[in-house]
Amino acid sequence: MKILQTNTAPNPRRVRIFLAEKGIQVPYEELDLMKGALKTPEFTKLNPFQRVPVLILDDGTPIAETVAICRYFEEMQPEPALFGKGALGRATVEMWNRRMELGLLLSVAQAFRHLHPAMATLEVPQVAAWGEANKPRALEVLQFMDKELATRRFIAGDEYSIADITALVGVDFMRPARIQRPEGLKNLARWHEEVSARPSAKA
Amino acid sequence: MKILQTNTAPNPRRVRIFLAEKGIQVPYEELDLMKGALKTPEFTKLNPFQRVPVLILDDGTPIAETVAICRYFEEMQPEPALFGKGALGRATVEMWNRRMELGLLLSVAQAFRHLHPAMATLEVPQVAAWGEANKPRALEVLQFMDKELATRRFIAGDEYSIADITALVGVDFMRPARIQRPEGLKNLARWHEEVSARPSAKA
Repeated sequence: MKILQTNTAPNPRRVRIFLAEKGIQVPYEELDLMKGALKTPEFTKLNPFQRVPVLILDDGTPIAETVAICRYFEEMQPEPALFGKGALGRATVEMWNRRMELGLLLSVAQAFRHLHPAMATLEVPQVAAWGEANKPRALEVLQFMDKELATRRFIAGDEYSIADITALVGVDFMRPARIQRPEGLKNLARWHEEVSARPSAKA
Repeated sequence: MKILQTNTAPNPRRVRIFLAEKGIQVPYEELDLMKGALKTPEFTKLNPFQRVPVLILDDGTPIAETVAICRYFEEMQPEPALFGKGALGRATVEMWNRRMELGLLLSVAQAFRHLHPAMATLEVPQVAAWGEANKPRALEVLQFMDKELATRRFIAGDEYSIADITALVGVDFMRPARIQRPEGLKNLARWHEEVSARPSAKA
């Protein structure tokens, strides 16, 4: 078993943090996406969508998509539960993970992909106006997170979950995406400090 | 329990099909998103992201996000399993549902939101170049689906799953998004005919 990934990209980091929280070790194989490693016929066969990370099982079966990889390990080793427990708990984590993914991380990633000069050959066409449109969306989600985090410790409730992982990666990816985190969001800052201090954040 | 939704929007349709496949009946309350029903303070309190569908539990708890709502019902009533079975089965369905969601449905929805005149007041700013950039992406996914569907009955394997629901809604939403389905994709057509013939498709 191994995971094909790119160390600087946000989605592989989600998987690394997830596995660190689970205490699961899987060897990582580094692919340089900036040098076209995801466009090769070999990699395209593993993931026709040409994205990392991809988990390769021992029999060679590839599993693509960050959350699919995380779910595989959640099913194989349920504790600590990072997708929630019980029907309402799992639905709540799913809701928050998606809000953090589609609202925050995707907005930050779109700003990065459509505005950063280094992405010009990977994101074709780069649509600068779309990159700019995503910046205020990301900031709106941060404001919302700050309000929500006034009432609880973590994004989806009192327990750390995959929603915290997605949110942490989204917030940290604002730096390469050149989106300034607004000052004065104290609850967000408290949460960010706490999740960043976990050993998994360095995975 | 009730579900707040808009009948013509793609995401509520995913929930309706999912519940029809499960044989679960929940009353739907129609909101006219074109008339600003998702921007009211009352609705914003239920879902600050101002999107439908939202499931309201009997105690008033709101659950937003299509897949979170579906997951709630999957947990409450596991059969028929629409999220897959076992670690590999669930990871596989998750992978395919995300490919259909992020690759197909999101691309079609972006084309609709950024190009359709009716969306001018809801999608601000409309970025026409971004809408156009999504059309070839959607078409690429259709080509890919056609190849994959040569080897199996449904999107994620031999069993019908939430990935088929997302894909069906994505393909059907191409019409309002004014994206022409290419001719000659025979496997895709065979699959589309089969999933469209299920009673759930009319839900």
